[in-house]
Amino acid sequence: MAEEWTFLERVHRMLQEEQILPTPPEASVVDFKYPHELSKIIDVSLETEVPRTLDEAEELCRLVLKYSVKTGHRFFCNQLFGGCDPYGLAGSWITDALNTSQYTFEVGPVFTLIEDAVVRKCLDLFNFIEGDGIFSPGGSMSNMYAMILARFKLDPHFKTAGLFGAKPLVAFTSQDAHYSLKKAAHWMGIGLDNLEVVKSDDRGRMCPDALREAIERVKCEGRRPFFVNATAGTTVLGAFDDINKLADVCEETGLWLHLDACLGGTAILSKNHKSLLNGSERLNSLAWNPHKTLGAPLQCSILLVKEKNLLHKCNCANADYLFQQDKFYDISYDTGDKSFQCGRKVDAFKFWLMMKVRGVGDLGDKVDNSMAMSNYLTEQLRTRPGFRLVLEEFQYTNVCFWYIPKAMRGQEETSDWWNNLYKVAPLIKEKMVKKGSMMVGFTPLLHKGIGNFFRMVITCQPSFSRNDIDEFIVEIEQFGDSLNFPL
Amino acid sequence: MAEEWTFLERVHRMLQEEQILPTPPEASVVDFKYPHELSKIIDVSLETEVPRTLDEAEELCRLVLKYSVKTGHRFFCNQLFGGCDPYGLAGSWITDALNTSQYTFEVGPVFTLIEDAVVRKCLDLFNFIEGDGIFSPGGSMSNMYAMILARFKLDPHFKTAGLFGAKPLVAFTSQDAHYSLKKAAHWMGIGLDNLEVVKSDDRGRMCPDALREAIERVKCEGRRPFFVNATAGTTVLGAFDDINKLADVCEETGLWLHLDACLGGTAILSKNHKSLLNGSERLNSLAWNPHKTLGAPLQCSILLVKEKNLLHKCNCANADYLFQQDKFYDISYDTGDKSFQCGRKVDAFKFWLMMKVRGVGDLGDKVDNSMAMSNYLTEQLRTRPGFRLVLEEFQYTNVCFWYIPKAMRGQEETSDWWNNLYKVAPLIKEKMVKKGSMMVGFTPLLHKGIGNFFRMVITCQPSFSRNDIDEFIVEIEQFGDSLNFPL
Repeated sequence: MAEEWTFLERVHRMLQEEQILPTPPEASVVDFKYPHELSKIIDVSLETEVPRTLDEAEELCRLVLKYSVKTGHRFFCNQLFGGCDPYGLAGSWITDALNTSQYTFEVGPVFTLIEDAVVRKCLDLFNFIEGDGIFSPGGSMSNMYAMILARFKLDPHFKTAGLFGAKPLVAFTSQDAHYSLKKAAHWMGIGLDNLEVVKSDDRGRMCPDALREAIERVKCEGRRPFFVNATAGTTVLGAFDDINKLADVCEETGLWLHLDACLGGTAILSKNHKSLLNGSERLNSLAWNPHKTLGAPLQCSILLVKEKNLLHKCNCANADYLFQQDKFYDISYDTGDKSFQCGRKVDAFKFWLMMKVRGVGDLGDKVDNSMAMSNYLTEQLRTRPGFRLVLEEFQYTNVCFWYIPKAMRGQEETSDWWNNLYKVAPLIKEKMVKKGSMMVGFTPLLHKGIGNFFRMVITCQPSFSRNDIDEFIVEIEQFGDSLNFPL
Repeated sequence: MAEEWTFLERVHRMLQEEQILPTPPEASVVDFKYPHELSKIIDVSLETEVPRTLDEAEELCRLVLKYSVKTGHRFFCNQLFGGCDPYGLAGSWITDALNTSQYTFEVGPVFTLIEDAVVRKCLDLFNFIEGDGIFSPGGSMSNMYAMILARFKLDPHFKTAGLFGAKPLVAFTSQDAHYSLKKAAHWMGIGLDNLEVVKSDDRGRMCPDALREAIERVKCEGRRPFFVNATAGTTVLGAFDDINKLADVCEETGLWLHLDACLGGTAILSKNHKSLLNGSERLNSLAWNPHKTLGAPLQCSILLVKEKNLLHKCNCANADYLFQQDKFYDISYDTGDKSFQCGRKVDAFKFWLMMKVRGVGDLGDKVDNSMAMSNYLTEQLRTRPGFRLVLEEFQYTNVCFWYIPKAMRGQEETSDWWNNLYKVAPLIKEKMVKKGSMMVGFTPLLHKGIGNFFRMVITCQPSFSRNDIDEFIVEIEQFGDSLNFPL
């Protein structure tokens, strides 16, 4: 029995030796293998049932580490998350080892107080004078929570009777908003047809006038508007909707205003950039994922709600076996019936530890550095031959651009030329992944009528330097100029 | 920078020194403090923003460890989960450190193959010849996934149009089933009134005839039955519904049959006890939480679906920025659009490592031991003075009983006497928690007309011995006989 537990010592050693904690700049981001190759290298199958020795188990784990993507590498810039904060990781390891659930004070006494402290801190940061909050398993879930709360607030009867026979409820989101709103509209029985996608402006921000018009139109159609999803930090362009202007519309029309700040909420930590979130005190709810930019390990996602007790009233099911009324302590500390989930992983502690040990000011400095580095990158790309920015400026740390290989420069920019350019990012991506030096995502933005471009994401972990940015640019140039034409 | 990372070494050392890895039998399960006391011992507040040294951070973490519940203690028998399997914990630490998401092969190459291998193994264990599966953040979510799939299968139009104007859809579950079905009925817009709660028999199993009648009644009422939730291992009594009998009803009536095997699915690993799950090949879907009995760290919950591709068809939203169609590898490995979630924690690896290192046979032995120990406990309590079993026999490892203190024995069992007895479990619970020697849950079962009794849960981690059971019984007796009467 004791021997089994020594495996955890090996885990820590392996993670150091395999350069995960932390990943040095000169390491590879990925040692790419195609699925059929990787299947031959690591025997993932569970068909044979032979117990392994500790050494064999270690060998397996080392292969897993070797062929996994090093998200903590400075040039893993592929997603809206990057490496993890070491204190966040420490928090995660501790809650893994303590293996408890967040539902009652009884089984999570310390973590109940800690989740409450984090919720109160976040309410304070976003100027919610009072309110409530809960950690959920990701932003999609947080956004659905908000829609469910708005529906319940509109009419608690929906909880018992369902939606059958009701006038269609309609939610509003923008063209640039996250697809999780679609999934929520489907799951909660609203339907995709009742999710109105409002036009956004050139920079990706929802147009308040278009929202107002859409609400009027929906009312004329005999449907019932109830919820607006604004975004702080859109997935691709990093755009921030103007909360105050949208709040004006929502106050006029009596709609719930939710802010999907899963990406951009982190700006609240920076004294210099929190104005991006001006108007947050007017929101009904807000979702924020410290597991994105900030480097809390996945999953770390919080939902804040302006109205106190609404989470409980909306979600309670009063299970006798868990939330007994005859306990010997104050059962208001049993917060689990606010949740959709029953067993709920402790996600608050890692973020608490980051804030407690670093101080919020230090986290704000990291945000400032990310913003400074994305501005530096934008400025470099603006003047560097061969690069073209998708927008003149970016509001956040996503920098979107095309690279025009030398062979394509100085030509008339016909639609054929553009269609060729849209092939460049996927081809460069293939090269960078196969070399293993970096990972940057690409995407089209179809509602703006444009094809593939790079979306470079600068996160807080690890910290970027100007030198990193300079190296990044040179590497993109080298990949781009080594492509074979015609593409 | 490097200094920060040394904190992870300290974490491992602290967890050993504070007796978390593993927790010895003689340690306390909990050092209980009331919320107001605990708040004074640990400064959880985030109001002051002073950075801490590593030593100060360590001191904070040690307090968190000291006052957290030791779920890995042999006498933490309070929930349907217990301690974690050391290989499961190793897997969890590794995925925390690698900090990636399960959505694309690109960012989770190894974990994509591993989730697939675990899904295929589970399909095989439950005799689903083919099918699909996904890890989700807990059983409540897995059960809702199943309901959403059933609704989509009934009519894919619900995804676009929502439920407005449709004939009310009705789901069926039993009196003894988990409350997550209620939460799902609310969230998905069906409404609690359209969740029909079917009578269960004396041992907690859904009555197939009552189900058949309920379906007929609902049809006569002009509502539309679509989904039946059976349970393998009910929350309190550990009852297993008869899958074959319920499948007969569902096949006759064309309803989707889901099995909430979150608790009892683990029986499939044991050659001696897998017959509890006979008929599983006839299910449309099944939810299983290896994070309960088996000791995979929270969260580890899998949903299996009989129909291949249905998860994808039902849930896809085709986000361009993530699931690009012009990647250089086979994009069928990008499984993220099957999911409700966008970013999704890697939950499969810990379970894979447990199966791979121990072999499924060894995990089955652990299940056999838990079953043997719960049988031993049942037999002891049957004949021991002062104990009374809630059922004559239990199908799984939950053993439900009352303790009748000496002062209450040999009296006429009037309703006053019973009401007094219902006070005993909460009072013993208070004593055990304040002493810190054990934690066992209590609950009433109101639909059976009975008040508080103990629900002792025997999990696989750590392994129970007969000696543990004997000590457990003596401890309950001592607490019970030390109560002051009148209660």
